[in-house]
Amino acid sequence: MVQQVVVIGGGAAGMSAASAARRADPACDVTVLEATGHAAYGVCGIPYYLAGLVDRADDLVAYPASYFRERRRIDLRLHTRALALDPERRVVHCRELERGVRLRYDRLVVAAGGAAVLPPLPGLDDDRVVTVRTLEDAIALRSLLDAGRIARALVVGAGYVGLEMAEALHARRVAVTAVEAMPAVMPTLDEPIAALVADEVRRHGVDLRLGARFNGVTRDEDQLLALVDGEALPVDVVVLAIGVRPSADVAAACGARTGPGGALLVDEEMRTSLEHVYAAGDCIAPQHLVLGRPAFVPLGPAGNKTGRVAGTVAAGGRARFRGVVGTAVVKVFDLGVARTGLTLAQAQDEFGPDVIATDIVGRSRAKYYPGAESVTVRLVHEPGGRLFGAQMVSTADVAKRIDVVAAALQAGFDVDDVLALDLSYAPPYAPVYEPLLLAAQAAATHSSRVAV
Amino acid sequence: MVQQVVVIGGGAAGMSAASAARRADPACDVTVLEATGHAAYGVCGIPYYLAGLVDRADDLVAYPASYFRERRRIDLRLHTRALALDPERRVVHCRELERGVRLRYDRLVVAAGGAAVLPPLPGLDDDRVVTVRTLEDAIALRSLLDAGRIARALVVGAGYVGLEMAEALHARRVAVTAVEAMPAVMPTLDEPIAALVADEVRRHGVDLRLGARFNGVTRDEDQLLALVDGEALPVDVVVLAIGVRPSADVAAACGARTGPGGALLVDEEMRTSLEHVYAAGDCIAPQHLVLGRPAFVPLGPAGNKTGRVAGTVAAGGRARFRGVVGTAVVKVFDLGVARTGLTLAQAQDEFGPDVIATDIVGRSRAKYYPGAESVTVRLVHEPGGRLFGAQMVSTADVAKRIDVVAAALQAGFDVDDVLALDLSYAPPYAPVYEPLLLAAQAAATHSSRVAV
Repeated sequence: MVQQVVVIGGGAAGMSAASAARRADPACDVTVLEATGHAAYGVCGIPYYLAGLVDRADDLVAYPASYFRERRRIDLRLHTRALALDPERRVVHCRELERGVRLRYDRLVVAAGGAAVLPPLPGLDDDRVVTVRTLEDAIALRSLLDAGRIARALVVGAGYVGLEMAEALHARRVAVTAVEAMPAVMPTLDEPIAALVADEVRRHGVDLRLGARFNGVTRDEDQLLALVDGEALPVDVVVLAIGVRPSADVAAACGARTGPGGALLVDEEMRTSLEHVYAAGDCIAPQHLVLGRPAFVPLGPAGNKTGRVAGTVAAGGRARFRGVVGTAVVKVFDLGVARTGLTLAQAQDEFGPDVIATDIVGRSRAKYYPGAESVTVRLVHEPGGRLFGAQMVSTADVAKRIDVVAAALQAGFDVDDVLALDLSYAPPYAPVYEPLLLAAQAAATHSSRVAV
Repeated sequence: MVQQVVVIGGGAAGMSAASAARRADPACDVTVLEATGHAAYGVCGIPYYLAGLVDRADDLVAYPASYFRERRRIDLRLHTRALALDPERRVVHCRELERGVRLRYDRLVVAAGGAAVLPPLPGLDDDRVVTVRTLEDAIALRSLLDAGRIARALVVGAGYVGLEMAEALHARRVAVTAVEAMPAVMPTLDEPIAALVADEVRRHGVDLRLGARFNGVTRDEDQLLALVDGEALPVDVVVLAIGVRPSADVAAACGARTGPGGALLVDEEMRTSLEHVYAAGDCIAPQHLVLGRPAFVPLGPAGNKTGRVAGTVAAGGRARFRGVVGTAVVKVFDLGVARTGLTLAQAQDEFGPDVIATDIVGRSRAKYYPGAESVTVRLVHEPGGRLFGAQMVSTADVAKRIDVVAAALQAGFDVDDVLALDLSYAPPYAPVYEPLLLAAQAAATHSSRVAV
């Protein structure tokens, strides 16, 4: 009998786990330990809240704490941080506000999420050096923006979070410099596609510096100075968006097996290597179905799904999560940027130098229909053979276009199978040869850069 | 040696066939016989030309005749109608303008397209009773609209062409009545989804009459009168959009095997049952991959693809077309209406009464992101099992959303496989639980009408 399900973390994965446990077993006790003062909010919405597109921080919250407590009978404890685990005695040690608390569990779900990577550089304890992983982070930064106290900002890191932050700050009329140590933005893209994204960022007036080194911050009297390639940039805030690492420490410290990036390894039912301990969300490395092994790809949909599976199984129900193919989309100013599967670089590393990329530029609609936009598609594949991934960039929709490739990857399709797809056509929505089909045709016939 | 490839029909399928034949064999002669004065135009663009969204009829033409003649060395003969076939002697008899012509072929591709179904009713020879299958039809109707000579119109048939025509006429400030003999619009949808479409049509002020009988037209002096359920409606034009039948007569008269709706049967290489005769486009019944047998589903993408395959194979190259799953999308005023696979009615006919439908209403974006719209999804499936089809309606994008299901159908996915899809997520483009995933979840757990 499972009587006590304890969940560490009240983010999307944790609250999914708690809700699923409640559904799977209406009789058990479900407790959630959340370190911050907010639960069940959408981290991905933070840039839009900062930009002012979303009015209130509460709008990002899926359900208020009272809903979980009263309607779902979940003992949601805010300001409660899990400190240590005793898997033998099935006890979590935590700090609830200022008080030490011991909690017994029958089943534990670790859904502690991810934390911003902080480089070991001088000055980062300055209160104008911020990360944006929590709603509290966001509320503090938005207050500064609303008060007109930020005119110049440095964003460190040009992955998708860094670019979203650059766009959000730009929308608030902040002069933004963005620095990236790598020679291209977004390491999840191949360089030619990343270059299109960099162009878009610069076109909007962001001072994007690639291959540039951030060396920390200093102060000259009241002025914050960000050190970039030896230059001291006067700024009002520094936003660190270098990356995310899994918050797996509590379980890892007890010997839970970890994999890529230090994330927890789990089976299809979200079991860790510790008995009675499950894990979900940004602290795990789920199976990557194209790679055929675990990968650390912390994204929202898998967080929600793995949370649901962990909670269901922990409470005695049945569910499984097969894995991810690495699908993601991000809005960068007027561009949608989407990717799934492996980049060319990843696929060549994994499957050998014969893997190639086929690039085409198609149209989003029939060419005679008003508003047709160009759609750039890269397919990564064996010559005329297996599909490994895709990248797409357009001012028109790429989010749903990449989803078709995500389905193709899950099905193990070749480029011929993609070419055979019976995709929808109507002049307002698509050309008769969808960009994806053009790309598949070029990939099947080895003729890159088909004119359309 | 293939020296003479002759193609009957200069529409999308015919010109695809001719161009593919030219690519496959640069040395052969390629001749296209087109009955009208226009080739290679997009029939699907006609409503937008009539509505005035597309300025000129020429804009609907993919390439001008001179391009095919000079750049692709295709002998494109306009105003040339194929009248009869002599498959023994490999001769097509045709009428080129006023002249009878005999043309020998080594390989023939029949891509004669589809023709509007004309009911045997009185008065339909009136020049204000029109169909809109050809660019000439469209140019004539647009002239009348541009001249302000149409204030009231009757559209007969509320399939997708009828609804597109109703919208186009409405956009020109024409008072539109639309009559449909069936009790619902769009027979390719199940009734509850069709009802949403009917609501949209009526909301825009079209007088939509379902289960109503069109009995032909008459004249009262100069006034055209359309007879509907015994009532005589004064109108300025009647647009017949009852359906499309395959223009297969020339080949069928020589004994070519036909299937559903009288369409030509072909193999994966587009061979008809007549030696040296191939067929493509709206005059064939390609394999339906969900039904597992041929079906008559005349739509643009398959027309282009089958044309390409027929032309390639006819000229000695290699290609194949596996079939369709029945994917289609249409814009009806502010709604996108998409479908793929089988309707519930079709699937129950085919696979038995255990087949069910699961309906959900999801959102197009994160709920906090501005512009989130509701998305209605119906999945047709075995309880917890095989997926047979889907229908979607939304003011947000459904064209690309249905494409994901098209891929799932081609892959033979169960609802569990759909639920496992790693779809893209970002607040501006999708909610963390895509409507399709919500539908799959409800379908997997037998809980219809999930609240979101």
